[in-house]
Amino acid sequence: MTAPVTVTDPDDPRLRDYTALTDVALRRRREPAEGLFMAEGEKVIRRALAAGHPMRSMLLSARWAEQMRDVIEEAGAPVYLVEPELAERVTGYHVHRGALAAMGRLPLPEPGELLAAARRLVVLEAVNDHTNIGAVFRGAAALGIDGVLLSPDCADPLYRRSVKVSMGAVFSLPYARLERWPHGLREVTGAGFRLLALTPQERAMDIAEEVRERGGDRVALLLGAEGSGLTPRALAAADAWVRIPMAHGIDSLNVAAAAAVACYAVTRP
Amino acid sequence: MTAPVTVTDPDDPRLRDYTALTDVALRRRREPAEGLFMAEGEKVIRRALAAGHPMRSMLLSARWAEQMRDVIEEAGAPVYLVEPELAERVTGYHVHRGALAAMGRLPLPEPGELLAAARRLVVLEAVNDHTNIGAVFRGAAALGIDGVLLSPDCADPLYRRSVKVSMGAVFSLPYARLERWPHGLREVTGAGFRLLALTPQERAMDIAEEVRERGGDRVALLLGAEGSGLTPRALAAADAWVRIPMAHGIDSLNVAAAAAVACYAVTRP
Repeated sequence: MTAPVTVTDPDDPRLRDYTALTDVALRRRREPAEGLFMAEGEKVIRRALAAGHPMRSMLLSARWAEQMRDVIEEAGAPVYLVEPELAERVTGYHVHRGALAAMGRLPLPEPGELLAAARRLVVLEAVNDHTNIGAVFRGAAALGIDGVLLSPDCADPLYRRSVKVSMGAVFSLPYARLERWPHGLREVTGAGFRLLALTPQERAMDIAEEVRERGGDRVALLLGAEGSGLTPRALAAADAWVRIPMAHGIDSLNVAAAAAVACYAVTRP
Repeated sequence: MTAPVTVTDPDDPRLRDYTALTDVALRRRREPAEGLFMAEGEKVIRRALAAGHPMRSMLLSARWAEQMRDVIEEAGAPVYLVEPELAERVTGYHVHRGALAAMGRLPLPEPGELLAAARRLVVLEAVNDHTNIGAVFRGAAALGIDGVLLSPDCADPLYRRSVKVSMGAVFSLPYARLERWPHGLREVTGAGFRLLALTPQERAMDIAEEVRERGGDRVALLLGAEGSGLTPRALAAADAWVRIPMAHGIDSLNVAAAAAVACYAVTRP
């Protein structure tokens, strides 16, 4: 077991992975470029490790070093013990979960690998809000979807906020990026998936009816960002348009709620 | 039409309704006590008015006075024009939607009124997060639920954040508070509703199966706060326990996603 090291200097270069965590613009650039992401809190750190992500180091308050003794032994990575004030000074926020880990990314699978193995997929266009990405992953994983495909401009599922909101589902649900958009959608339909675009438009078919008529197998659910919804180009690439019927004059659901309902509808025909 | 008044003094007593909006503890006490709530942004303000809420005043930047001319005429309430810096100083945050309205609350209906008129209800226990309350209302309204009953310790649906996340659904979906908990649930079952408690527990029945067997009419869906879930007392008061089957080792959904899926399941048997 690597002995934990107490660190008292906020400028200690060993803490570099943890600097300025609240600077979203900086971290969005830095983390993918350096093959790094942050896991926050004991549960999420354990799930990241269990999913095979290598640990670079951990930043812990003293009480967590005891609690996570087995994790420290298993991971064999450096452990830095810090006072809460120092953690806040380095990261820029109050780390109330007391445990942060700098983890290494794994290479993403190719879309083709997901398409070969999956029965049902979620495909996201331009969902660039970290909370929404995390919430979609949590719901899709829970409701039995086999993987997620992302347009090039979707937010990073491994950004700290996404990981946290997903409750670690970003580790258990495989995902890949389509490099070209919307042309990459042809790969989805070419692999035999029926690509269903979710839209509130009246001319779209009730999703329950679509599933009754054609079943919920080899289906890819295409969802767009909240507010703007799917682009005309993405809508045009779909095999069919489906909608979740709505009442009370409400014209749309949050993208995570829409995804959860749609996943439920296709997995329980 | 009331002529808009330009205000330049942050301590002007006419701005009192708008002070310290970011002080959650203060506003949670003050707003219900003073029969007040805040509507933020043009769309939400219009929906609050359309739902019959009286307007106390509006705080606008100059460009919004033009855009909301018809609202100003219709409401006949004082309008205060302020520079963005002044708005920030008074409220404590950058009002990027440029329009705030102080609105008056209406008396809530009695639970009995809702129970007499509704086919399907959502009942919430201890959901004290404003974002979650708002998201549950948005989903429940969209998916055709007729009303919401709240336990005494649920958060305020008219708190600024709840209103915003609900996209105004807190105005279109009637709700009431049960004064006694969990005894008040007897009123629900006494009115002929089948009270279904959502729980991830294995011994609960698949919600789809429950709906297939007994239909989705005169059903009340009982959901608890994220994390802790329903209390044993609330679980004991239910007619049956139902669950949404989950995959990938995920053990729960966010309460808003769970509510959306459950509402979908009971409204489309």
